[in-house]
Amino acid sequence: MLRTHTCGELRPEHIGQTVTLCGWVQRTRDKGGILWVDLRDRYGITQLALEEGVETAEVREQARQLGREFVICVTGPVVERHSQNDKMPTGGIEIRVEKLDVLNPAKLPPFLIEDDTDGGDDLRMKYRYLDLRRNPVRQNLMLRHRVAQATRRFLDGQEFIEVETPVLIKSTPEGARDFVVPSRMNPGEFYALPQSPQTFKQLLMVSGFDRYFQIVKCFRDEDLRADRQPEFTQIDCEMSFVEQEDILSTFEGLVQYLFREVKNLEIGTLPRMTYADAMRFYGNDKPDTRFEMKFVELNDIAKGHNFPVFEAAELVVGICATGAASYTRKQLDELTEYVKRPQIGATGLVYARVEADGNVKSSVDKFYDQDALQQWKAAFNAQPGDLLLVLAGPADKTRKALSELRLEMGQRLGLRDKNSFSALWVVDFPLLEYLEEEGRYFAMHHPFTSPKPEDMALLDNPDTIGQARANAYDMVINGVEVGGGSIRIHDRAVQARMFSLLGFSDEEAKAQFGFLLDAFEYGAPPHGGIAFGFDRLCSLFGGADSIRDFIAFPKNNSGRDVMIDSPSQISGAQLKELSIKTDVAAGK
Amino acid sequence: MLRTHTCGELRPEHIGQTVTLCGWVQRTRDKGGILWVDLRDRYGITQLALEEGVETAEVREQARQLGREFVICVTGPVVERHSQNDKMPTGGIEIRVEKLDVLNPAKLPPFLIEDDTDGGDDLRMKYRYLDLRRNPVRQNLMLRHRVAQATRRFLDGQEFIEVETPVLIKSTPEGARDFVVPSRMNPGEFYALPQSPQTFKQLLMVSGFDRYFQIVKCFRDEDLRADRQPEFTQIDCEMSFVEQEDILSTFEGLVQYLFREVKNLEIGTLPRMTYADAMRFYGNDKPDTRFEMKFVELNDIAKGHNFPVFEAAELVVGICATGAASYTRKQLDELTEYVKRPQIGATGLVYARVEADGNVKSSVDKFYDQDALQQWKAAFNAQPGDLLLVLAGPADKTRKALSELRLEMGQRLGLRDKNSFSALWVVDFPLLEYLEEEGRYFAMHHPFTSPKPEDMALLDNPDTIGQARANAYDMVINGVEVGGGSIRIHDRAVQARMFSLLGFSDEEAKAQFGFLLDAFEYGAPPHGGIAFGFDRLCSLFGGADSIRDFIAFPKNNSGRDVMIDSPSQISGAQLKELSIKTDVAAGK
Repeated sequence: MLRTHTCGELRPEHIGQTVTLCGWVQRTRDKGGILWVDLRDRYGITQLALEEGVETAEVREQARQLGREFVICVTGPVVERHSQNDKMPTGGIEIRVEKLDVLNPAKLPPFLIEDDTDGGDDLRMKYRYLDLRRNPVRQNLMLRHRVAQATRRFLDGQEFIEVETPVLIKSTPEGARDFVVPSRMNPGEFYALPQSPQTFKQLLMVSGFDRYFQIVKCFRDEDLRADRQPEFTQIDCEMSFVEQEDILSTFEGLVQYLFREVKNLEIGTLPRMTYADAMRFYGNDKPDTRFEMKFVELNDIAKGHNFPVFEAAELVVGICATGAASYTRKQLDELTEYVKRPQIGATGLVYARVEADGNVKSSVDKFYDQDALQQWKAAFNAQPGDLLLVLAGPADKTRKALSELRLEMGQRLGLRDKNSFSALWVVDFPLLEYLEEEGRYFAMHHPFTSPKPEDMALLDNPDTIGQARANAYDMVINGVEVGGGSIRIHDRAVQARMFSLLGFSDEEAKAQFGFLLDAFEYGAPPHGGIAFGFDRLCSLFGGADSIRDFIAFPKNNSGRDVMIDSPSQISGAQLKELSIKTDVAAGK
Repeated sequence: MLRTHTCGELRPEHIGQTVTLCGWVQRTRDKGGILWVDLRDRYGITQLALEEGVETAEVREQARQLGREFVICVTGPVVERHSQNDKMPTGGIEIRVEKLDVLNPAKLPPFLIEDDTDGGDDLRMKYRYLDLRRNPVRQNLMLRHRVAQATRRFLDGQEFIEVETPVLIKSTPEGARDFVVPSRMNPGEFYALPQSPQTFKQLLMVSGFDRYFQIVKCFRDEDLRADRQPEFTQIDCEMSFVEQEDILSTFEGLVQYLFREVKNLEIGTLPRMTYADAMRFYGNDKPDTRFEMKFVELNDIAKGHNFPVFEAAELVVGICATGAASYTRKQLDELTEYVKRPQIGATGLVYARVEADGNVKSSVDKFYDQDALQQWKAAFNAQPGDLLLVLAGPADKTRKALSELRLEMGQRLGLRDKNSFSALWVVDFPLLEYLEEEGRYFAMHHPFTSPKPEDMALLDNPDTIGQARANAYDMVINGVEVGGGSIRIHDRAVQARMFSLLGFSDEEAKAQFGFLLDAFEYGAPPHGGIAFGFDRLCSLFGGADSIRDFIAFPKNNSGRDVMIDSPSQISGAQLKELSIKTDVAAGK
């Protein structure tokens, strides 16, 4: 190695040794007749000192020429630091520089390579390799490495085998939009990139692999929302001879292990909540359970008081914001505006304060006397100082709006601490959902999910199909769905039935998934699995809202990598070899 | 779990316990009034016994209906086995069956699920999920898992960080043919799938990551030879602040570790051989060093004897096959035919036997008297019983042909044992090679490889460009190139120079690799790396010639996955969304 030590490892016990360090110039300053240089590498920062009369004039002149981010190699003795710095691991020492080589000079970076940078998003994406030098971003990727290593260690210890499944697979009509790859050797035909290795992991179960996992790239050609990437990574897992409970306990174990290893935290047993309860009490299938503030339905006590909004509403439902009775009129107006935003869509907000004396003051006192409001208070089990917030309207829409309001109040009341974690399982999802615009049922999880055996009969009656529940489950942490899975169908007839419910003709099912239907006839074991969103899991561990800075080279919202300028045009010769033409003259 | 134990874990100490096992019916037989069932899972095979008068008539009738590969679940006590079988880990026990559930019946598999199957390649590919049930194939994938886990363990222990690089990148003109992916959001533009993460890992070095690795899928759209796959896996690594020696010793350490962990073998220090010596002594830049049989050049002693073939030849060169003097005329004719095959291309073979009395008998006795032949014998340091095999012709072609003959002789003499391993480094590769058909130089490794500093001046003279050597190296094991890498260029001017030598205009270099050239201006450290062919490494550890059975779902030589029938046509709507058209009506 060009160096004897890294910039993070020298301590007072090294004093007197002559060492060679390599790294980047973080900053230089000339103070008190001494030229100081902070030398940085991945492992830390070490201070170099060049003093007049101690270091040679030549070396001092070289040091004077150094700019930010120059790559240098220095040799000299480790000495006691002029002014000790307890905050730095290397703060007890510094290096006297006997020899200095510039390994590579650097132009002035377009933004500061500091924890807090002055670079905007676009500039940081274009010079991603410089942004990755910043401590917070590098820490994120190191965290990601540790989570991946710990995941593999745990699963390997549980006899899971990592098997690589193919990236060049086949386009299927169900699910999100596929990225496709024209085949040169099979003109007119295309591979697709996997949205998940779902069918392959099921085939591995048919093969008897028993416990499979893979940390694997998946691809979806969707319009990118703020925090979605066209390529993303899953921890993909499958087990044989299991029931739902076995999957839940195994992967509860994984997540407990990751929290222990990576965050040094015990998260304990994960509670289970049915989908029905999640919707009823949180209006959301991924409730943030770091705080309570459960929904309370008020139809029984709110109706019959001639308040037209409530009278006309399918559902009257509210939350109790502990200690928020002191909210000012202005704050309450803000909340009202918040729920009336088009993306939330409530028509208005009713509120009621529980005052110090126990009386309740509401925005609808005209319709509700104190007795009535005391009923509200009792329904919420509210205490003096609490604020009740109530919405009314169509049931689904109102729950959804109240869920947003609940999260907003949780945020405002400081109940959503990024360093506290609340994990749970949401279970018993519906098997199918009817999409009006498509005029047919869609699989809520995916077409390979098993109905609950006790709900199979519901599928026979068109009126009850939508009520059938699946052996499907999501792991939710802090309101984020970090993983989801299901027990799969392993019976050919049930799988064929499912395809038919989803509107596939027999021919379509056979053309798309014939290999899977065939496989089920050659001895398929009962099996099930789960997939975790790895990028999301890492950002959660890192206490961040966005996954982008947990991905080394992310794409922007147009699917572009602005650093390498991709996608790009390809040559006419390439197109010809692939037997394709583009419809458009390329334009960026 | 549906089971209490696996089919591989029960031992005599479990006798008396009641257990539940799940698995596949390997075979059934009715013998001596007892119905025997071999139950198989990933972990092993356990024998079930159903005896008249012991098991109920109902359970025995169920067992009688079982076919091969039925998936069943059985419960019963563990008992001492009727006839102990020392060869099976579970050979001390069997299960009396009190309860038998068929979890899934199975059609008769299209080929035998046995170590030696009767299924042809095509059938096994179509029903890959059944082929994967066979012990040898499953063992290969479990070996692959172990090699991957051990690789990560070793590199993590050496402070390497695994970073995922993007799969959707940019098409570049250098190297093999790219697979491309039309971008829906950027009409007329395409992503490419990476042939390797080369530029990204270099950017990670520029970012200061210092030690990177990744076990990563790579893609090349090449015409598939017997043992090549369009998608393959690399162990991709890069380090900063290193010289060649640091890379060699680090990854020598990795491979020693893998042999120790996976094969329980010490392979010791890897010798270094220059490319020049490899070509001179083995005619091959990946010599199989499990056996010596080095080339001996005979120009000095073979010429001047009026043998027209040798007189006209640029090179006369041979090998000494120890103990092969007893080869019959027929065997020697076979060898002559072998070297005259078009793909080998020698015009003939001269041989000479060293007889028991030390005399040499050759096929060219007409031109060489015993004195002359004794000179040959001395040149080879040959002993009685040895066979000398000599080729002559143009130097490069003759060396290549002799290399093939050497390997063939090694095979025939049993010197290429799959369970013995000989590893070495081949170093000092030429930087560039001139391809006549293209009329320009190409990078022998890739365009980012650093010339040896002492050879830089050779690049200034058109006559000596081809002589410049690179800081490039391959790891070769048993004649297979398992890994290769180089010290990279980290200086913008040198990199620009290299692009120019490769025939890029400034504009082309900038358009394709501008981001890398830019990055070199912002403080790029000296760095280098290596990539191992992971599929190949696994097949080597597994003692196999082909990589195919070390890949869970390989493609055939036309790039097709015959199991899922991919690639396939996609819908007109998909094409339209992607703004592309196909030139041809699809046809398989």
